[in-house]
Amino acid sequence: MTAFPEVSKIQYEGPQSDNPLAFRWYNPDEVVAGKTMKEHLRFTVTYWHTFRGTGSDPFGGGTMQRPWDDGSESVENACNRARAAFEFFEKLDAPFYAFHDRDVAPEGASLSESNANLDAVAKVLKEEQERTGVKLLWGTANMFSNPRFMHGAATTCNVEVFAYAAAQVKKALEVTKELGGENYVFWGGREGYQCLYNTDMKRELDHLGQFFHMAVDYAKEIGFTGQFLIEPKPKEPTKHQYDSDAAACLNFLRTYDLMDHFKLNIETNHATLAGHEMMHELEYAGMQGALGSIDANTGDLLLGWDTDQFGTNYYLTTQTMLVLLKYGLAPGGVNFDAKVRRESFEPIDLFYAHIGSMDAFARGLKIAAKIIEDGAIQNVVDQRYSSWNGDLGKKIEAGNVSFAELEKLMLEKGEAAANTSGRQELLENIVNRYVDNA
Amino acid sequence: MTAFPEVSKIQYEGPQSDNPLAFRWYNPDEVVAGKTMKEHLRFTVTYWHTFRGTGSDPFGGGTMQRPWDDGSESVENACNRARAAFEFFEKLDAPFYAFHDRDVAPEGASLSESNANLDAVAKVLKEEQERTGVKLLWGTANMFSNPRFMHGAATTCNVEVFAYAAAQVKKALEVTKELGGENYVFWGGREGYQCLYNTDMKRELDHLGQFFHMAVDYAKEIGFTGQFLIEPKPKEPTKHQYDSDAAACLNFLRTYDLMDHFKLNIETNHATLAGHEMMHELEYAGMQGALGSIDANTGDLLLGWDTDQFGTNYYLTTQTMLVLLKYGLAPGGVNFDAKVRRESFEPIDLFYAHIGSMDAFARGLKIAAKIIEDGAIQNVVDQRYSSWNGDLGKKIEAGNVSFAELEKLMLEKGEAAANTSGRQELLENIVNRYVDNA
Amino acid sequence: MTAFPEVSKIQYEGPQSDNPLAFRWYNPDEVVAGKTMKEHLRFTVTYWHTFRGTGSDPFGGGTMQRPWDDGSESVENACNRARAAFEFFEKLDAPFYAFHDRDVAPEGASLSESNANLDAVAKVLKEEQERTGVKLLWGTANMFSNPRFMHGAATTCNVEVFAYAAAQVKKALEVTKELGGENYVFWGGREGYQCLYNTDMKRELDHLGQFFHMAVDYAKEIGFTGQFLIEPKPKEPTKHQYDSDAAACLNFLRTYDLMDHFKLNIETNHATLAGHEMMHELEYAGMQGALGSIDANTGDLLLGWDTDQFGTNYYLTTQTMLVLLKYGLAPGGVNFDAKVRRESFEPIDLFYAHIGSMDAFARGLKIAAKIIEDGAIQNVVDQRYSSWNGDLGKKIEAGNVSFAELEKLMLEKGEAAANTSGRQELLENIVNRYVDNA
Amino acid sequence: MTAFPEVSKIQYEGPQSDNPLAFRWYNPDEVVAGKTMKEHLRFTVTYWHTFRGTGSDPFGGGTMQRPWDDGSESVENACNRARAAFEFFEKLDAPFYAFHDRDVAPEGASLSESNANLDAVAKVLKEEQERTGVKLLWGTANMFSNPRFMHGAATTCNVEVFAYAAAQVKKALEVTKELGGENYVFWGGREGYQCLYNTDMKRELDHLGQFFHMAVDYAKEIGFTGQFLIEPKPKEPTKHQYDSDAAACLNFLRTYDLMDHFKLNIETNHATLAGHEMMHELEYAGMQGALGSIDANTGDLLLGWDTDQFGTNYYLTTQTMLVLLKYGLAPGGVNFDAKVRRESFEPIDLFYAHIGSMDAFARGLKIAAKIIEDGAIQNVVDQRYSSWNGDLGKKIEAGNVSFAELEKLMLEKGEAAANTSGRQELLENIVNRYVDNA
Repeated sequence: MTAFPEVSKIQYEGPQSDNPLAFRWYNPDEVVAGKTMKEHLRFTVTYWHTFRGTGSDPFGGGTMQRPWDDGSESVENACNRARAAFEFFEKLDAPFYAFHDRDVAPEGASLSESNANLDAVAKVLKEEQERTGVKLLWGTANMFSNPRFMHGAATTCNVEVFAYAAAQVKKALEVTKELGGENYVFWGGREGYQCLYNTDMKRELDHLGQFFHMAVDYAKEIGFTGQFLIEPKPKEPTKHQYDSDAAACLNFLRTYDLMDHFKLNIETNHATLAGHEMMHELEYAGMQGALGSIDANTGDLLLGWDTDQFGTNYYLTTQTMLVLLKYGLAPGGVNFDAKVRRESFEPIDLFYAHIGSMDAFARGLKIAAKIIEDGAIQNVVDQRYSSWNGDLGKKIEAGNVSFAELEKLMLEKGEAAANTSGRQELLENIVNRYVDNA
Repeated sequence: MTAFPEVSKIQYEGPQSDNPLAFRWYNPDEVVAGKTMKEHLRFTVTYWHTFRGTGSDPFGGGTMQRPWDDGSESVENACNRARAAFEFFEKLDAPFYAFHDRDVAPEGASLSESNANLDAVAKVLKEEQERTGVKLLWGTANMFSNPRFMHGAATTCNVEVFAYAAAQVKKALEVTKELGGENYVFWGGREGYQCLYNTDMKRELDHLGQFFHMAVDYAKEIGFTGQFLIEPKPKEPTKHQYDSDAAACLNFLRTYDLMDHFKLNIETNHATLAGHEMMHELEYAGMQGALGSIDANTGDLLLGWDTDQFGTNYYLTTQTMLVLLKYGLAPGGVNFDAKVRRESFEPIDLFYAHIGSMDAFARGLKIAAKIIEDGAIQNVVDQRYSSWNGDLGKKIEAGNVSFAELEKLMLEKGEAAANTSGRQELLENIVNRYVDNA
Repeated sequence: MTAFPEVSKIQYEGPQSDNPLAFRWYNPDEVVAGKTMKEHLRFTVTYWHTFRGTGSDPFGGGTMQRPWDDGSESVENACNRARAAFEFFEKLDAPFYAFHDRDVAPEGASLSESNANLDAVAKVLKEEQERTGVKLLWGTANMFSNPRFMHGAATTCNVEVFAYAAAQVKKALEVTKELGGENYVFWGGREGYQCLYNTDMKRELDHLGQFFHMAVDYAKEIGFTGQFLIEPKPKEPTKHQYDSDAAACLNFLRTYDLMDHFKLNIETNHATLAGHEMMHELEYAGMQGALGSIDANTGDLLLGWDTDQFGTNYYLTTQTMLVLLKYGLAPGGVNFDAKVRRESFEPIDLFYAHIGSMDAFARGLKIAAKIIEDGAIQNVVDQRYSSWNGDLGKKIEAGNVSFAELEKLMLEKGEAAANTSGRQELLENIVNRYVDNA
Repeated sequence: MTAFPEVSKIQYEGPQSDNPLAFRWYNPDEVVAGKTMKEHLRFTVTYWHTFRGTGSDPFGGGTMQRPWDDGSESVENACNRARAAFEFFEKLDAPFYAFHDRDVAPEGASLSESNANLDAVAKVLKEEQERTGVKLLWGTANMFSNPRFMHGAATTCNVEVFAYAAAQVKKALEVTKELGGENYVFWGGREGYQCLYNTDMKRELDHLGQFFHMAVDYAKEIGFTGQFLIEPKPKEPTKHQYDSDAAACLNFLRTYDLMDHFKLNIETNHATLAGHEMMHELEYAGMQGALGSIDANTGDLLLGWDTDQFGTNYYLTTQTMLVLLKYGLAPGGVNFDAKVRRESFEPIDLFYAHIGSMDAFARGLKIAAKIIEDGAIQNVVDQRYSSWNGDLGKKIEAGNVSFAELEKLMLEKGEAAANTSGRQELLENIVNRYVDNA
């Protein structure tokens, strides 16, 4: 039995191809900047959107047609769905996938039943991984959908919910380890608040710090060596999420002495909801040694919620790849935390969506690699900061100068040396030249 | 000679007064929650908006009528303006003022001339302070208006501009000390970027870290014991300011080992531009021991720029005072970083604006104090988190528990205890009850 | 049997009452500005949020505890729910309610079954209306929840879905008439687009025009004399709704010659999502004779989606009532299109939420009425425009002047008469005075 | 004397050129879709940004280096500046320019002096037009910079300011006619409000209606046959502009019976500030026969003010050209209402900026033309709406059907025909294919 009988394995056909079921840019074994595209991009399919997304929204029910799914919450259906998913990964030539515990296996009537369900499905996932070679980028625990988490998980006001969440992460870590997951992600779900009047922010964050330390300890105990990741998001579902952006996450990690154990999983749509460009969040994390992985999607900047669209914009993928080539991505990946539109309800739309975005990233990789190879941007930057390379700059950067010395210098000179143009427009034109020609 | 001949000293007349030149709520010596209103609120008039604001905007020139100001950039005019300002402070009964170096004295043809101008005006400021008893809440250096700072001051790509900025802060620190300033503020001006393509964010932030360390060293050297403050703002004038919000500032301070030397000056309109409620930023800073002072204004949440309006909204002032009563304000103050609208160009509008906002804060203080006295909100919060006060909560908070123990507990229970309502609507109603009756 | 055994009929107890289940301001028979509060405010409970809202959001399932609801989609359950709703209306002393067809009765396997279900429940609604005296403010058809409407209803690309929607509105009009509904509302649901690439906007709007003409014709045919209303909203669920704001709705109505038949139902949260203050949209509709009714809620201006919160802000209710007192409200109403937060899941929260907002509107009514009675704002406005009351102004307003005459005048004068201050700050202070004292 | 000695006439060198002072795509005489690029694009340089922009912003003074400008407000300087401008137009090969009265000539001490100044400079403009063949796309009057317009021009509360504005537009119309301007534009400047409390919106809009009728009458009187245009903008400088978006403008025009005389000048950055994509506003205006011209720039969607950046984004230019090819552009133009960044202060940056954006539009034109030629998007749209081409659809579109007939049909069928996928992702991929290959 096959879930996608109408689709064969997607092939690379080159830029001119108008076959919507072929890659035009993603050529897995093509070498760019010293590595294959496959090694650079580490494409990952998300289980939740692609195999559990229903198309429902706050104003209407699900629309998705998924013939392989009987709609039940049975373990059997979950196993069948897993097999369909791996068929999709294979046909798409995606080397990785990622999941939440409750995506892959149904929640049971009790925690132990839920754990048993997860084990049963994990067995199939492992078989499928071995059969196909597809690997697990990361696992995580869904601690936001069930009403028990209405007030948060690690930051809930209900101490037993905290305990429940701890148990759930423990299990998710075990399963992630069992499946060879290369990372483990915490997205803050409902870790935040709806209303400051009823919230003790400090106490909640202290609890979160404790929670993360327990996770670190438990990973050590069981020998899980994957990278821990936190995923910033400013709002939604709560009015204010604690992990609101990269800065808030890193300030939290520093406050609770967790910097050695966590990196960030940066998502485009979350970055822009927080008022930052994706490139900003990537660079901000990267320069602090905390860039772990990306959730590759795009938002609609005229809308105020997380639309999780598949990104096809070459400027976005180029900017993303400029930073990823600088700081490196592995063991992270380009994870398509993106969903087809509610109206794109046919199975074939899943292929169109992934293919288009994989191509856009492959194209962005080539553009970025060529810009870097040519020094097309870096030359302008180097020129711009060149005054810092003189003696004065070196002394300042080494911390060997005081206000008094600098004042003395400037009193003598009276005025600073003239500025030079920032050349923003020229740089934007240069990027277009590479979009055209790379 | 008098600048405001039509206005006498503003008097408290009580809530029913319809005299627009009287206080209805601000009664300086009235004791609330154990201190006088004057001690609690530490109202501060900003020199830049109130005495240097012209009413210009990107689409048109200045409108303000300021008969005491001859419009020249002479030191004499600057001294006359200073005297007019102190008349205003006195008539308004404002205990503090704050300024940038270039607000009070004109920039000269060279740094030394600028310094001399500043000294000349500072002499008058000191005389006026002594004459009136009005004190300096803080001083600061304007390192953004002059085109030399187009690429930033401490974060500029032009090393000599960095040196110039250092000299300017050195002088501003000296003057602030001379005038008994209780704080010194850094607002990031153009410390940020317009375009990531031409920016080396890491190098710029390293420079900023060096700059702040030099400032700390110099303050120590000259015996300036006032509090250093950083003022977060997410954008404007640059596309992205480095000190984007409280979290970004604190992460920066932690990264560069500056937490012991700086607190934050939180501004309402900057908070909301960053996507946070003022109350959030205050609480976030407060819980980390970093709440220093506030820039009391309000923004228009339907506009995307810093409108710096005078705040008259009781919900805002109540929320602000709830946090300030919790963490304390001194040596900070309620600084009116606010400007009359371009169309409110008559001198009398300056009085209306300040009186209205002082009253709104006095009213907010009374409401907040009564809410706290009655435990009207705290009781709900305490109840909400009460499950954490049991043995399990205590153990978790003490760090004496592991995932394994928590899992064991929850496997036995199967499900967490039931949640209780968050009661947001009830709390909002309670606040209205205090707005009506406090 | 009773749905709310713990709640008796809510009584007015006055501003000082701290009984959360009493009105502090809403005193139905108190006369304000010549009418009772009940007549002015025409409070309306919405069936969908209050009796069908589950508390689900895009990240999690329902939370609401509704003991009277067995969770089934049976007609019997729908009838029981209706009886619980009327108990709520009665205890709350709400004179009106409003519903969508699919809120009150379950959708059947076919259109005819759905119609039969609706008739069965409407019978109970009618009995309950007669028993209690609670009236129907308006009815409407839900043409967005069912997947058939994924591409819109009247603006769908699927002609049979248009036909289905027509049939559904026909039935909803009949039921609304049968229940004595005073209005009939169209909220655009999915009338808009997700993507311009796949959309023929002109053709879709032409269809919408046809649809509305058919509705007008059918109302005439059956003798339904209630007011037709359109409810503007800029986005959500679609990326761009056609009825994006009052201006877009009125331009549409003028284009399709429908101005005589429709007014607007203005919602606070929709106004602000469109970038307008509620007061703007009300005044904009009102000045064009098109203000029909209001959906009284509030949004969170820091969030980008429709939060539909209960409004308790006195500034908002005062501004709303200032306009409603100017243009009148009946046959419209103050319809609480608002939902308790997901975490406020207990039945009692429904009472807290409605009581608080009814009080806030009653308070806003009193404040607004007193401002109007005193001319406190109007006097300032009159003074501001007084130059227009002279001969020149009259001539211009009558259309009896040309550019040439005006140029002649200004060439002679050389410059226009001086402006006067806009007095915004003074006016904001005046409003606070009335908030304190009205 | 030459203003730009270092720049020769910009030449087309083809896509691979890395000469930053050459066109890579704009090849004026290249024929695309039946017309030359020059005829399609009608590129226009704006006088205000490019020759009067200083680089000042709310936080600092001007930065621009303009060696040909002595900084004075003399007529002689204005004439010299005009000659520099035409050198720029020529070297850039821009066929059109546009100006406000006060951009090109200094405001005098009286209206008559201002008019004389304008005449003197207009004489030079005319000579330069004749010398170079560069034409005037449109003229307009600046009725927002001078403080007299603080409360608006046609919508001011000061009747003499209205008269002054009338005189100013009269003169600007005369000069525009004298210079062969093909359009005349009204941008609403300060036509809006800062505060609803002090505003009589209805009276102000009535005045605006009168004003426009006078303009129409005067144009007729003097035989000016250019197209009148209104330019929507939602906010800035006022809190709320009356011409907030295309819908608001068209509703106004319909209300005041002005639809026959005006079209719209749509600006990208204004569209997005209003919450609409540029493509939406263009299509919305176009489908109503009201698309007149475009202000071609781009905004920063993460900032909330009008940044007026030069657009280089191919998606934006493609979408713009898709609509312009559909509805036509002449007598409108692609007007670069865009300014170089404050930090791009060298004269050469003006060339980089214009060249880059001209190339981006030329590229967008080629992409859009090829998409249209291939029917690549239209085929999907046609298929999507195909159900409307049957008998039922035709009957509905002709207005020959009633709710009763449609109900009858659907009662028989029970359910509508199945929907098909909206194919948004596929369409986005198709656009990328054309970006790569057109």
